Amino acid sequence: LPGRRPSLAGPFTAGELAERLGGEVEGDAGVSLVGVRTLAEAGPEHLSFVRGKRYARQLESTRAGAVLVDRGADGGGRTVIRCDDPYLAYARAQTLFHPVRWPQAGIDPQAKVAESARVEGATVEAFAFVGPGARLGAGSWIQAGAYVGAGATVGRGCRLMPGSVVLEECVLGDRVWLNPGAVIGGEGFGFAPSASGHVKVPQVARVVIGDDVEIGANTSVDRGALNDTVIEAGSKLDSQVQIGHGARVGAGSLLAGFVGIAGSSRLGRFSMFGGRSGTSDHVTTGDGVQLAGGSIVFGDEPAGAKLAGYPAIEAGLWKRAVAAFSRLPEMLRRQRRMERRLARLEATAEERSE
Amino acid sequence: LPGRRPSLAGPFTAGELAERLGGEVEGDAGVSLVGVRTLAEAGPEHLSFVRGKRYARQLESTRAGAVLVDRGADGGGRTVIRCDDPYLAYARAQTLFHPVRWPQAGIDPQAKVAESARVEGATVEAFAFVGPGARLGAGSWIQAGAYVGAGATVGRGCRLMPGSVVLEECVLGDRVWLNPGAVIGGEGFGFAPSASGHVKVPQVARVVIGDDVEIGANTSVDRGALNDTVIEAGSKLDSQVQIGHGARVGAGSLLAGFVGIAGSSRLGRFSMFGGRSGTSDHVTTGDGVQLAGGSIVFGDEPAGAKLAGYPAIEAGLWKRAVAAFSRLPEMLRRQRRMERRLARLEATAEERSE
Amino acid sequence: LPGRRPSLAGPFTAGELAERLGGEVEGDAGVSLVGVRTLAEAGPEHLSFVRGKRYARQLESTRAGAVLVDRGADGGGRTVIRCDDPYLAYARAQTLFHPVRWPQAGIDPQAKVAESARVEGATVEAFAFVGPGARLGAGSWIQAGAYVGAGATVGRGCRLMPGSVVLEECVLGDRVWLNPGAVIGGEGFGFAPSASGHVKVPQVARVVIGDDVEIGANTSVDRGALNDTVIEAGSKLDSQVQIGHGARVGAGSLLAGFVGIAGSSRLGRFSMFGGRSGTSDHVTTGDGVQLAGGSIVFGDEPAGAKLAGYPAIEAGLWKRAVAAFSRLPEMLRRQRRMERRLARLEATAEERSE
Repeated sequence: LPGRRPSLAGPFTAGELAERLGGEVEGDAGVSLVGVRTLAEAGPEHLSFVRGKRYARQLESTRAGAVLVDRGADGGGRTVIRCDDPYLAYARAQTLFHPVRWPQAGIDPQAKVAESARVEGATVEAFAFVGPGARLGAGSWIQAGAYVGAGATVGRGCRLMPGSVVLEECVLGDRVWLNPGAVIGGEGFGFAPSASGHVKVPQVARVVIGDDVEIGANTSVDRGALNDTVIEAGSKLDSQVQIGHGARVGAGSLLAGFVGIAGSSRLGRFSMFGGRSGTSDHVTTGDGVQLAGGSIVFGDEPAGAKLAGYPAIEAGLWKRAVAAFSRLPEMLRRQRRMERRLARLEATAEERSE
Repeated sequence: LPGRRPSLAGPFTAGELAERLGGEVEGDAGVSLVGVRTLAEAGPEHLSFVRGKRYARQLESTRAGAVLVDRGADGGGRTVIRCDDPYLAYARAQTLFHPVRWPQAGIDPQAKVAESARVEGATVEAFAFVGPGARLGAGSWIQAGAYVGAGATVGRGCRLMPGSVVLEECVLGDRVWLNPGAVIGGEGFGFAPSASGHVKVPQVARVVIGDDVEIGANTSVDRGALNDTVIEAGSKLDSQVQIGHGARVGAGSLLAGFVGIAGSSRLGRFSMFGGRSGTSDHVTTGDGVQLAGGSIVFGDEPAGAKLAGYPAIEAGLWKRAVAAFSRLPEMLRRQRRMERRLARLEATAEERSE
Repeated sequence: LPGRRPSLAGPFTAGELAERLGGEVEGDAGVSLVGVRTLAEAGPEHLSFVRGKRYARQLESTRAGAVLVDRGADGGGRTVIRCDDPYLAYARAQTLFHPVRWPQAGIDPQAKVAESARVEGATVEAFAFVGPGARLGAGSWIQAGAYVGAGATVGRGCRLMPGSVVLEECVLGDRVWLNPGAVIGGEGFGFAPSASGHVKVPQVARVVIGDDVEIGANTSVDRGALNDTVIEAGSKLDSQVQIGHGARVGAGSLLAGFVGIAGSSRLGRFSMFGGRSGTSDHVTTGDGVQLAGGSIVFGDEPAGAKLAGYPAIEAGLWKRAVAAFSRLPEMLRRQRRMERRLARLEATAEERSE
């Protein structure tokens, strides 16, 4: 097997990294670092980082050339870079070692770009399709086989990975990143019952996606029927997520794999929804709501609520209820036994009163 | 940001719409309407509609030029179109304002169509693939990058959106609509255990889809091993749905997002399955079964059953059990307290009998 | 409607099949068989098989020309092929009737293959993309619209079905089969919170897939952040599965539809995960763990554990708890009644002691 993906930039010294990351070196500021590895895998040429107490013990045995640690951490004699948030510093260091290789602007001869599309300063690869009236911002990268429908707008610096789809009239802000298989603007699920079967409700609104949104592989964001479906700026959607028609996801939200937001639901800003969680139709949740994996919200919830379960209830209560759940068979047995004991006592009391 | 998708037809007067929708105008039949909006967003040039009591109050304050209302509703002096089912009338009105822009028949020079394929009267866009022996009905529209495998049959008036896939030998009826990323005829999940690992069971049956079926984005309908997987006419599948090999979905069913129908299960006609619900293997459910979101059916169920939970039970019972679930910690405490009280009573009774 | 997919090889006599499958004919070894059907559908020209007692009764009424049965089964006078495992023998027989029609090696003129890619002995269809430095093993088949990114490695005899995607630097072993819409190497879901929003953690590790792995339609396997995401040899993933970044799936595992394995989780060999089941982050489970459909594992589990529920507990206990769950409303009523009875007894005891 070939090795893992090599760093694309560097090496950097610990001192250079500290400066760029706003940290302070304790130890050898001149040590040369070619990339980032976990504490367990790092060698003397690697930067590593400590995240949480779970990993603090591994710090003792790591061979890393330098380690990103908390301001107050004990370096134990090794070269460390102290910083406010080692995990954030790791993310930024990794970005230095692995800048995205953005291609030169231009249209591949095997692409299909409508004459009325505006694509100056963008890259369009083979088998990509850009429909009539579509607009691509400068520096956007439409990878092989991606699709931009008629009248759609793609902002600047966007990346549409292979096989991603933006359907007609939909709008992407700047620096939006779509993974392969992401579908923006598929038909919302709306039908009116009639004597002759389900009549399709035309889904004529759009999907509007803010700046700096990332959408995972095979995730679908359906277009609205009358109101746009909206993903506000800075939100991140994992793979296999579904956003129903007319829903709104507040800015800076994180939605993990298999999250499903049903039609017309509205999530506040900085919502954090765990894997396979979601909402029922027409639910509104406030800013900063945290929903545990596997949980479904059926009613409106205030800002800051921490929820779990199906249907979702207050997370602490849910944890206690779940602990009791596995004791249900025992509770049932104890209940039967008590009923027998009660009956005996009642019989005794009866006898005495006679 | 550009505006929402404009109407493609109209304007229509309230009188014209009433005639086409089988309704009756009360008020100004001549008011000219350019499109449909919600009650809250409509202006004097818009049609709107009232659906449910929740919206009836908004009727008082809407600026809509005309509103679709129930036969018996109070128009309150404004222009209304009375009809049997305002939501159905809205769907039909919207279809008048937004006819689908179907393209002219023809094959894009950047498409790949096998010589032995029969495609008269259909549209095949760039990067679409039509395999040997495949047949496309008149008026069908194979969008960019869609795939029709060898020997597959696509009926008349179908729309295969960008990146949708119909694999070899599968059969689509007329007016079938596949959203992007829909995969019809992927391999069923069948393996026989053996000493040398899992042996693939060839999946050699097909997927057969009836007329007027809509399939959502990134939904997959797997081909059968020995029996065809069948989606009967008029059924609608949302995004992110999976239908296992050899399953059958009865006519006119509605399956919401993330529904999973396991292999060889059979759903009756007009089944309504909520988001993230589904069946276990080899389950048969009758006509008109309603399954709540997030619920899984593990055994056969009769026609008309209303079910919820995991495993699914009668929906009313499930609601009561779920309400009790959050009281489990309290029940446990009360049980312990009763046991102590019982023990005390028993001790007292013992003393007395001595 | 056209008929089902015809057999591509045969006919074979019962004797020929018995020899190839390691079975023994009882009855007419010369009967000519054109394909496999279920017991109910088979005619005199078909092979069929008995799987489980559920089907044993159908054996009496089948019209099949020959039936694969257990070594000890009663043939009842008809032609049977006795073998150790009729279901495994059926899988192997079906493979004889339906060998996959593998195309001739070559590159379609409408494909896009980078000059630096190595593709000798492979087939690359129209609209398929093979990036710089990618390598395709002999006999591999890249179907229409499939994507192989820069530096990716595809082993020998792989099949990348239409629209499947293997992103840069990822590695596939031999005989790997990707269904349409499968995405290998999409971005892992990793972000570091910061005052200015979520900062992307570059996902720079790869996905590495072993030999003989099959990946279902619209399934996504995300690339790792620092450690590769690994699917070991012989594992089979159904449609609509998600494997998070840095996760590892042990050899020979079976993951059914909608399974989600969260980031950095590690599954042992021969894991069997039912539909819509999965793990939380950083969970390790031993070899041979069986997880029921719809269940989520939140903590580490030893080899051989049989689990069910959300959160997952021992499967037997879960079954009893679930049975008790639907009795919760009744338990609550009985508890209230007991409390009243207890209070009465206590009052009586009080009176007497006075």
